[in-house]
Amino acid sequence: MTDQKTAITPTRAQDFPEWYQQVIRAADLAENSDVRGCMVIKPWGYGIWEQMQRGLDKMFKETGHKNAYFPLFIPLSYLAKEAEHVSGFAKECAVVTHHRLEVDSEGKLRPAPSAELTEPLVVRPTSETIIGATYAKWVQSYRDLPILINQWANVVRWEMRPRLFLRTAEFLWQEGHTAHETEAEAVEETEKMLDVYATFAREFLAVPVFTGEKTEAERFPGAVKTLCIEAMVQDRKAIQAGTSHFLGQNFAKASNIVFQSREGKQELAWTTSWGVSTRLVGTVIMAHADDDGMIVPPRIAPTHVVILPISPKPETREAVFAAAEKLAEELRGVTFHGAPVEVEVDKRDIGGGTKNWEWIKKGAPVRIELGPRDLEKGTVAVARRDQSPKEKQFLPVADVVAQIAATLQAIQDNLYARALTLRDANLCDIDTKEAFYEYFTPKNSGKPEIHGGFARSHWCGSRECEAQIKEDLKVTIRCIPFDAAAEDGQCVFCGNASKRRVIFAKSY
Amino acid sequence: MTDQKTAITPTRAQDFPEWYQQVIRAADLAENSDVRGCMVIKPWGYGIWEQMQRGLDKMFKETGHKNAYFPLFIPLSYLAKEAEHVSGFAKECAVVTHHRLEVDSEGKLRPAPSAELTEPLVVRPTSETIIGATYAKWVQSYRDLPILINQWANVVRWEMRPRLFLRTAEFLWQEGHTAHETEAEAVEETEKMLDVYATFAREFLAVPVFTGEKTEAERFPGAVKTLCIEAMVQDRKAIQAGTSHFLGQNFAKASNIVFQSREGKQELAWTTSWGVSTRLVGTVIMAHADDDGMIVPPRIAPTHVVILPISPKPETREAVFAAAEKLAEELRGVTFHGAPVEVEVDKRDIGGGTKNWEWIKKGAPVRIELGPRDLEKGTVAVARRDQSPKEKQFLPVADVVAQIAATLQAIQDNLYARALTLRDANLCDIDTKEAFYEYFTPKNSGKPEIHGGFARSHWCGSRECEAQIKEDLKVTIRCIPFDAAAEDGQCVFCGNASKRRVIFAKSY
Repeated sequence: MTDQKTAITPTRAQDFPEWYQQVIRAADLAENSDVRGCMVIKPWGYGIWEQMQRGLDKMFKETGHKNAYFPLFIPLSYLAKEAEHVSGFAKECAVVTHHRLEVDSEGKLRPAPSAELTEPLVVRPTSETIIGATYAKWVQSYRDLPILINQWANVVRWEMRPRLFLRTAEFLWQEGHTAHETEAEAVEETEKMLDVYATFAREFLAVPVFTGEKTEAERFPGAVKTLCIEAMVQDRKAIQAGTSHFLGQNFAKASNIVFQSREGKQELAWTTSWGVSTRLVGTVIMAHADDDGMIVPPRIAPTHVVILPISPKPETREAVFAAAEKLAEELRGVTFHGAPVEVEVDKRDIGGGTKNWEWIKKGAPVRIELGPRDLEKGTVAVARRDQSPKEKQFLPVADVVAQIAATLQAIQDNLYARALTLRDANLCDIDTKEAFYEYFTPKNSGKPEIHGGFARSHWCGSRECEAQIKEDLKVTIRCIPFDAAAEDGQCVFCGNASKRRVIFAKSY
Repeated sequence: MTDQKTAITPTRAQDFPEWYQQVIRAADLAENSDVRGCMVIKPWGYGIWEQMQRGLDKMFKETGHKNAYFPLFIPLSYLAKEAEHVSGFAKECAVVTHHRLEVDSEGKLRPAPSAELTEPLVVRPTSETIIGATYAKWVQSYRDLPILINQWANVVRWEMRPRLFLRTAEFLWQEGHTAHETEAEAVEETEKMLDVYATFAREFLAVPVFTGEKTEAERFPGAVKTLCIEAMVQDRKAIQAGTSHFLGQNFAKASNIVFQSREGKQELAWTTSWGVSTRLVGTVIMAHADDDGMIVPPRIAPTHVVILPISPKPETREAVFAAAEKLAEELRGVTFHGAPVEVEVDKRDIGGGTKNWEWIKKGAPVRIELGPRDLEKGTVAVARRDQSPKEKQFLPVADVVAQIAATLQAIQDNLYARALTLRDANLCDIDTKEAFYEYFTPKNSGKPEIHGGFARSHWCGSRECEAQIKEDLKVTIRCIPFDAAAEDGQCVFCGNASKRRVIFAKSY
């Protein structure tokens, strides 16, 4: 395989982090802007995010949530209200201190000293505090609960080592914020939304995930419980793809969300928050792309089918274009998961090979080539992005249209199956410290290769063991999985008693 | 009419600005946040914005545009690149100067002095400069043109006198940014997108608009031409509801968007930008709401039909609820402009009258009451929000379902017709200065009533006349309308020769 020419250099095996950057470039997904840590999401990358938004938004609405919008800015004093929250988020904020610019004596633009804000504003890193302050006004009685709201927004967390999609200073996300009458209801909501994320990851992103709870050390600052979905990508590292937090009464207390209960008493509400971000785009790239570029799972593809009309001679050009448009219209008449199949006819006047490879690199699920000879035969050449670039099926046009929805679903299922196979092959139970350290220590090869995968090992529950493992190996507990059976064992680090296995991995 | 009880106090006639605030409150559309000038858009208000987004986004895509996303922050030096632009936007910006907070010696949170940015960042008031810098990298040859991109985003312009939806420090909008090979193409794009806005205003918002060009004084800072749509609202003032700018080569020059032409020469691109914002929600309120609250045009309504099950007795409750759900399902099976009719069954355990009035105030297009006696008769009571609250039609269930799409369109058309009637009744040609000043001078009644409406008058083209009229009357030239016939006349202010009439009005 290694001597085969690939569209992306280096390959995954050669240098995974660099391969990731090159896929983003080759697929035209995003690029760094001149503003440190902030990215430009290009149309193809943004189109994928739009499809993710559409899928998630529908699921949020089906579970009773409505969208709303809250301010971008948070007064400094709000952030300070919840003690753990402030220490978690105050470190990495963009701070607005002035509300006007002026030209100074040297003719240069500067923040106007006369327009300094009395209280600085923080660009939201997350919105628990500002939304909490609003809910406090909305809630008087138990009749005002639950509040089930989601927000689609941009947030800013200053990043020293930004990486496109995975870690950027500004990113796009959704943040759900709910308030409830009882603890049980809030816990149920936290679990329900994690389940929505897990279902979404599996069915839309074609990414299998572990669901579970974070350890105290990895919890959202201010939360009582943080639940998460964790995916394995192709270098066998973990990505936290979504989190759902049970906030207990911590933020209700900080924001004074008080209501009159059914018994007539004043009580604090129970709140939750949950979010996924443009990091999901990075997750999908790392999970599915190959050495020829991006592979977009059909359910989140902005374009499902690209038709490439091929006509070397001017005299057949019109006929080929017309046939391509006709086929496009027929395909658009087919429904894939409730919406029309999205088709693009690429008529650009550039070489057929270049064009074909562009779409391979972008990862469009299906490519259809159509030339003058195909017109005579009534067939077209169909290529699936999850198969080799050289593999083509010659099919009668009517069959292509009849089968397109099934083909797209087959690609979707195949991507999921591949990802699951990779994960299963790199997941093992490890029971000794020696084996554990061996599993996660990179070979002295000089290569940036990741050793290991996911280890299911016993952990005694102490922060010290967890911290030492992180220090030694850069390995963290990704989650305490929901589906772990109770099982007596010994902590892989200290040997103390443990009741069940947790999932350890290196992570992004 | 004045002695009749209304849900909103004061009425439009009594105090239009206060009525506007009260409608927003009664309809639960938005509220002020604790962050000066920033609003919280509540679910019903945000739902209207989502419908607007859906409608516009489809039109943008049909005209060949794709969405993308650019950074929230703009380096100070970028803003300074275009001379007119900086003087227009530098005044009212949120300026980020630090990227971290710290606890000071008194235990208080403050921007960390060690984390001061070398170059301050401005929270985008609009994105011409940052997008221009990006396009400069994307464009090498004429083959890279046109670039047709739209962005949905939040922007910030510091406001000293904020007003919900109409003028807020942070607002949501879309901004299209395109780059072209030729001047003619860019001008065509500018006009095409204005036409999209005008069509959208008429067909979705049920708001008639004048289309035309802004005078030099009212132009977007840095633009060569600003085209606009101008609506009249119920106090006869104008609202600029959308703008489309032909930027010539000004921003291409500032950002260095240079391409190799077909003739092999290095040339500057021609750019455009165009936008509408959450201000449209304010426009719709002022255009259609009445003294009982909001009226949402069906094409932008988050909920088209509210079913209000009425059952005073517990023994019929289940049957009434079941019938309501069955009717809801049947209605959802109907398509209105390509999407299912949106139906909400309001089962909340509060009084029927309160519930009915809540939905009147929110402005849901159709309300359907359904009680035990209706079950027996097989009929329901249907009320249209564009008719009196007391007016109800008793109809067989099957007829309601069969007619719902037509009913919704009838409401949409009626709202448009009303708005057009109002505008036509308050639009006149004025040819003398005396009549002009009389038309726009408020009567000495002590009331905040607006005198006048839209005046079509001759203007010589001088900035001085325009400025003096603005100074004297707070009246501005809303636009030089496209449909104005060439007509010789005399400037209404100075008497000099004029070639055509322009539209004067007071405005928001």
